[in-house]
Amino acid sequence: MEEKEVKLFGMWASDFALRVEWALELKGIEYEYVNEDLPFNQSEELLRLNSVTKKIPVLVHNGKPLAESLVIIEYIDDTWKEGYSIMPKDPYDRAQARFWAKFAEDKCITTTLGVFTSEGEAQKKVVQEAREAFKTLKQAITGKEHFGGDSIGYLDLAIGLFAFLMPVFEEIVGVSIVDDANAPLLKAWFARFLDVDLIKTSLPPRDKMYELCKERQQQFISGQIKF
Amino acid sequence: MEEKEVKLFGMWASDFALRVEWALELKGIEYEYVNEDLPFNQSEELLRLNSVTKKIPVLVHNGKPLAESLVIIEYIDDTWKEGYSIMPKDPYDRAQARFWAKFAEDKCITTTLGVFTSEGEAQKKVVQEAREAFKTLKQAITGKEHFGGDSIGYLDLAIGLFAFLMPVFEEIVGVSIVDDANAPLLKAWFARFLDVDLIKTSLPPRDKMYELCKERQQQFISGQIKF
Repeated sequence: MEEKEVKLFGMWASDFALRVEWALELKGIEYEYVNEDLPFNQSEELLRLNSVTKKIPVLVHNGKPLAESLVIIEYIDDTWKEGYSIMPKDPYDRAQARFWAKFAEDKCITTTLGVFTSEGEAQKKVVQEAREAFKTLKQAITGKEHFGGDSIGYLDLAIGLFAFLMPVFEEIVGVSIVDDANAPLLKAWFARFLDVDLIKTSLPPRDKMYELCKERQQQFISGQIKF
Repeated sequence: MEEKEVKLFGMWASDFALRVEWALELKGIEYEYVNEDLPFNQSEELLRLNSVTKKIPVLVHNGKPLAESLVIIEYIDDTWKEGYSIMPKDPYDRAQARFWAKFAEDKCITTTLGVFTSEGEAQKKVVQEAREAFKTLKQAITGKEHFGGDSIGYLDLAIGLFAFLMPVFEEIVGVSIVDDANAPLLKAWFARFLDVDLIKTSLPPRDKMYELCKERQQQFISGQIKF
């Protein structure tokens, strides 16, 4: 078989790999997908391609590897300029999208994982922080259909993982973070995002994801794996 | 006095604000500088302009505010396209610069601040992590004069704060992190970077910085301020 010029090293349940898959699909780029056996059995090839962080996703384009999902998304939009625009065209809007993506990484993801892997009083505190973070995030979508405007873009891909994973986390932990009381705009966007055809057809089965998340939660709590 | 179209809210000793000052200077952009009284007395205007993270630097361009130093640097390069190129021109090089800037933020800065604000066994552990991080970072400069190639660029601005601050931190803590044994390429680049005219003339006085860092160290350790 002929080797494709684009190869993605991911893992079926990885939200970070999904971000890149979505970007490739939006652009209509053909690629070969390599599913890594994580978190304990990375392939030799992955370790060679990303010796710095040793993490997925890694995109290999014409033999050259790139890591970090958000960096890869910008690269894809930069390299395949034709077709779907992932980054906003205006420099100020582009900067704002990057700002909010960083906010989501620093505040929303960290606190959500904190809720997922803590208990008791410590959990109560981080639940409050997570709710605050999502409340703040609504500023980026107020008055818009998607974070990218009328259609999904960079920030939607960056934040989209919550739309799918948050309800799974909330069910496992028994705590609600993004709900109609605290963050109704976000909650409504979750539904719209998951209803986009491309997203709908790319998501892993919920029950399989639920089982994996429960397993990961135990691995986090027992210290077997780290953020 | 006529209001300038570009205004930067910073603080004289902030490495993150310095990043943006350097970018503005490289482009030859005139701007008004507002020195904030941090960490305890932010101006009302700053809190209004950046209600999300409440942090400096904030760049205001034609009345529109932007936060996060690396986001601002990209915006500056994107908006004032003429003159000095801050971002690499090639999409792959640009992506690599973003990757390493993220690595520096996630690994080098975190561990360096960890060393600065810990003691005893905990400090020994984080010193080791910091040394490893800087050892890894050398990959981004091997064979080059600066991270940006022959001249300084995005990644130099992102990492440049270490060139000035690391020796100050090392002196205060009495521990060596970037030295000829562990990271000779980085150490040599520190000297080259600090010798660039623009950088040399923009740095705050070392003794004033030393005193402030000692004060901050105590504030961190006592929990008065947080990262």
